[in-house]
Amino acid sequence: MRASRFFISTLKEAPSDAEIVSHKLMMRAGMIKRLGSGIYTYMPMGLKVIRKVEAIIREEMNKSGAIELLMPLVQPAELWQETGRWDKMGPELMRVKDRHGREFAIQPTSEEVITDVVRSEIKSYKQLPLNFYHIQTKFRDERRPRFGLMRGREFTMKDAYSFDRDLEGMQKSYQIMFDAYVKIFTRFGLKFRAVAADNGAIGGTGSHEFHVIASTGEDALVYCPTSDYAANIEAAEALATGTRAAPAAALEKTSTPKAQKCEDVAKLLKIDLSRTVKTIALTVEQEGKKQYFMLLLRGDHELNEIKVGKVPGLAQHRFSTEEEIQEVYGCVPGYLGPIGTKAPVTVVADRTVALMSDFVTGANEADYHYTGANWGRDVAEPAIVADLRNVVEGDASPDGKGVLAIERGIEVGHVFQLGTAYSQSMNATFLDEQGKSAPLQMGCYGIGVTRILGAAIEQNFDDKGIIWPTALAPFELVLCPMGYDRSDMVKEETDKLYAAAEAAGIDVIVDDRGLRPGAMFADWELIGVPHRVVIGERGLKEGNLEYQGRRDAEATAVPVADIINFIKAKVQQ
Amino acid sequence: MRASRFFISTLKEAPSDAEIVSHKLMMRAGMIKRLGSGIYTYMPMGLKVIRKVEAIIREEMNKSGAIELLMPLVQPAELWQETGRWDKMGPELMRVKDRHGREFAIQPTSEEVITDVVRSEIKSYKQLPLNFYHIQTKFRDERRPRFGLMRGREFTMKDAYSFDRDLEGMQKSYQIMFDAYVKIFTRFGLKFRAVAADNGAIGGTGSHEFHVIASTGEDALVYCPTSDYAANIEAAEALATGTRAAPAAALEKTSTPKAQKCEDVAKLLKIDLSRTVKTIALTVEQEGKKQYFMLLLRGDHELNEIKVGKVPGLAQHRFSTEEEIQEVYGCVPGYLGPIGTKAPVTVVADRTVALMSDFVTGANEADYHYTGANWGRDVAEPAIVADLRNVVEGDASPDGKGVLAIERGIEVGHVFQLGTAYSQSMNATFLDEQGKSAPLQMGCYGIGVTRILGAAIEQNFDDKGIIWPTALAPFELVLCPMGYDRSDMVKEETDKLYAAAEAAGIDVIVDDRGLRPGAMFADWELIGVPHRVVIGERGLKEGNLEYQGRRDAEATAVPVADIINFIKAKVQQ
Repeated sequence: MRASRFFISTLKEAPSDAEIVSHKLMMRAGMIKRLGSGIYTYMPMGLKVIRKVEAIIREEMNKSGAIELLMPLVQPAELWQETGRWDKMGPELMRVKDRHGREFAIQPTSEEVITDVVRSEIKSYKQLPLNFYHIQTKFRDERRPRFGLMRGREFTMKDAYSFDRDLEGMQKSYQIMFDAYVKIFTRFGLKFRAVAADNGAIGGTGSHEFHVIASTGEDALVYCPTSDYAANIEAAEALATGTRAAPAAALEKTSTPKAQKCEDVAKLLKIDLSRTVKTIALTVEQEGKKQYFMLLLRGDHELNEIKVGKVPGLAQHRFSTEEEIQEVYGCVPGYLGPIGTKAPVTVVADRTVALMSDFVTGANEADYHYTGANWGRDVAEPAIVADLRNVVEGDASPDGKGVLAIERGIEVGHVFQLGTAYSQSMNATFLDEQGKSAPLQMGCYGIGVTRILGAAIEQNFDDKGIIWPTALAPFELVLCPMGYDRSDMVKEETDKLYAAAEAAGIDVIVDDRGLRPGAMFADWELIGVPHRVVIGERGLKEGNLEYQGRRDAEATAVPVADIINFIKAKVQQ
Repeated sequence: MRASRFFISTLKEAPSDAEIVSHKLMMRAGMIKRLGSGIYTYMPMGLKVIRKVEAIIREEMNKSGAIELLMPLVQPAELWQETGRWDKMGPELMRVKDRHGREFAIQPTSEEVITDVVRSEIKSYKQLPLNFYHIQTKFRDERRPRFGLMRGREFTMKDAYSFDRDLEGMQKSYQIMFDAYVKIFTRFGLKFRAVAADNGAIGGTGSHEFHVIASTGEDALVYCPTSDYAANIEAAEALATGTRAAPAAALEKTSTPKAQKCEDVAKLLKIDLSRTVKTIALTVEQEGKKQYFMLLLRGDHELNEIKVGKVPGLAQHRFSTEEEIQEVYGCVPGYLGPIGTKAPVTVVADRTVALMSDFVTGANEADYHYTGANWGRDVAEPAIVADLRNVVEGDASPDGKGVLAIERGIEVGHVFQLGTAYSQSMNATFLDEQGKSAPLQMGCYGIGVTRILGAAIEQNFDDKGIIWPTALAPFELVLCPMGYDRSDMVKEETDKLYAAAEAAGIDVIVDDRGLRPGAMFADWELIGVPHRVVIGERGLKEGNLEYQGRRDAEATAVPVADIINFIKAKVQQ
């Protein structure tokens, strides 16, 4: 490609609404252009990256045996009503009426449509297994779109759906997809991690998320450096190790004025935060009846809402109101504690709290805490002990093979064992060898195509701009001639090198725009092309060209005769 | 590809809602699957064809210098309001509100968005010319979707938009696109014709449609076999040749009971239909005032509504009601004529009618016609003479180089000189050398990607099924082994041939499904793969394979050693 025939439009400053680095750099590099909130035009430079992402996904999906089709964007409401998602999904499902008043969804995913296709096409176990995928535009009417392509409303997604006759087959299809995803993200050239994920409201029997590692990521990924264990913090089990020590201190009621938070109490009493216990009051309302739960967490631990929802009886909880707390505990919030708590309150202690002794907790009286509190002696053993908290670095790995570390990631893929959730509600069945009908076992597998761009940049940038991995770069190589329009020698060598690079299958762009070196280099460093060759008279007279990798501090002189092989080796690295 | 790893689903019968052959065959061949009215899932076999269409378009667009980007599906109403299309477009524009109540259009085309992109990106004449295109899903809420992909609601279109500094530049960009379209349709392997088109309501300075020739086409294409002249019948000028003969007959009022139509009058009077003149009464209402026009057409000619709309004063016409006719002409419809007609009626004669003499026309009295009517002698010369009719075969070509022929076509492409219609309303300007601001000159260029499939089939089918041109076929070659699972010799030769075909770059599928020959052949003839090789024990023992082209009546024996070169030659034809 010649730059003069392409469209390059870089900006010195990012628009003020760009909050994160990938959004800023994509705007500055002219890769995307905002059309509306969470809606972007993919400009030529950005589209080239998207096409590379799609091509890698397509190749690996095809190799894995998945079959590509294309499902419509505008999908009849009737199908979404069959699975109940028409009602279950909130306003993030974009709904539209046609001229006859019939309702449609603009697809955010295609479980309903693919299940409809399959239920009419699949009759027999002989046609199984099957895995269909498409790469299609999606729409999700986010309440607060932001971060450019990271949380847009219109985006591109690869979604695949597998169909099997039984659980074993489904798990096999799931594993094939898992392996394909590993290949895909490896080919992208990104540092990534697959982690066990929470199954969410949809149920199902298992799921993994694929995250691009980036310090700016929204998700906390828990892993064990000495084993295979990895999970999203939402799903990572917190073990409580050791045993409860015998009481050593006496129970004392201590004045803690204005110390409603554990942090304040610890400071006031000059003790470690890990000696305190914090209390969270929950209410469960069912059929007009209210139940009250007191959750106990170590002062330095964080509540994990997903885990709370899994405690029997707490699926539909909410935080208690101040009025409820006053009424039930006779105390203002901030000074609650298990001592003296009785029916109708159920105490739910985190595993760690259940093993504590001589702890500090609220006295159910404003401005007072107890110190030296002990289970059994001062307060009844908790009614329920459960895993309620996020793991922290240094926790024991649930597989018993080490201690946990935490890093941040950006979710770009999700594989999911759906089971029969959709096939049962939509009556998608097959006949087995005995002619018996059974629901299809399904899996679904998504990759956020356009989100990959944002995630790749969050992982790979510097103060000059983007640093694309070669596999995703809009161009693998840029040729920067010094005086293309002034020096015959430079022009001739540049044209020769351009032809040779194209012939060698390198995705090359030559900057024939006639910019000065500073502006030219700044553009390509911002855009993030990983390999650059400068063609200048001085070097040519010595038989050399100047190569510089995007991460290199300095250029390297490479003999003209060697340059193509040199670049080929770099590109293939 | 191995058939066992692909998804093949053929039907004996087409569903009853499939009216035309391409729709029936695409359904039977398992290429598309109906999701809703005018909304289809592209099944794997159909998607393969779509991808081939897209690849050819993309290659030729890129070669022509156009630059690919991707504009969103969901577009803010504000942009559509700027050009007035939000109101002008009827219910075929699908409109949707987001969760905040903001309005959006699901794009049917992208003039507004590209003009918005360009007005913020283009500052100077130095950045021109530019041509941006995308291949994107479109939605048009047709009142009556039908004919499968031919008149669907959701479809794929390639739309390109050129931007130039002046008319000359725009016409050059237009010619480049016209030439690219000729290359694209030639590469498709379809018989097509580019015809001059009516510019429609949008104005502009010129446009051409590209039609795939098919006897089932909705459009009549007028062309001159001895010159370059070609136009859609909507736009083809009808010349009146010769001069008006002197009156030879006397004017006579003749009883023509119950003969309201020219056909009936001619039959009754035993004269040729071309001796009669038919009358069409129009009303134009403006600011509460009504004007009346009497259109005259030769009895055997057809009214061309688009031409009528271009007659000065008739842009906003409608057919007169029966009440209006009674009031103005004092006569029931069917017996109107120019003789005796006076103000407020304006007579508008077609060019051919203006040259007639001794003609037959209504007497403005029920059950009576005049014969032997003559201009000047019996009735005043018409107030307006204009081209009002469709041309017919044998008419003189407007370029004076022969006589016209007519064939039917399916519109699959449209190139359009827009001029400044959009750039002015959206204030998309550039600065010239003198720093003067001027609106950009635009062109727009569309190809109906998914419609190509329907059109190609309407042109190429037989009673067995589809006959794809090689360039569009889902697979170029199918290998049909006779007993792949029974004969080692057949399996071995099939696998060898499959590998060799893939290595030679042939898009090959091997049917390893284990079907019987009849069912296997019927499938591939229905699907329309253009080249087939049968591998059987009997032939192999003689060193032969059986080749049969989809249009061939019989198979040809080809020596095993020659087959790859033989197929390569066939595929490249």
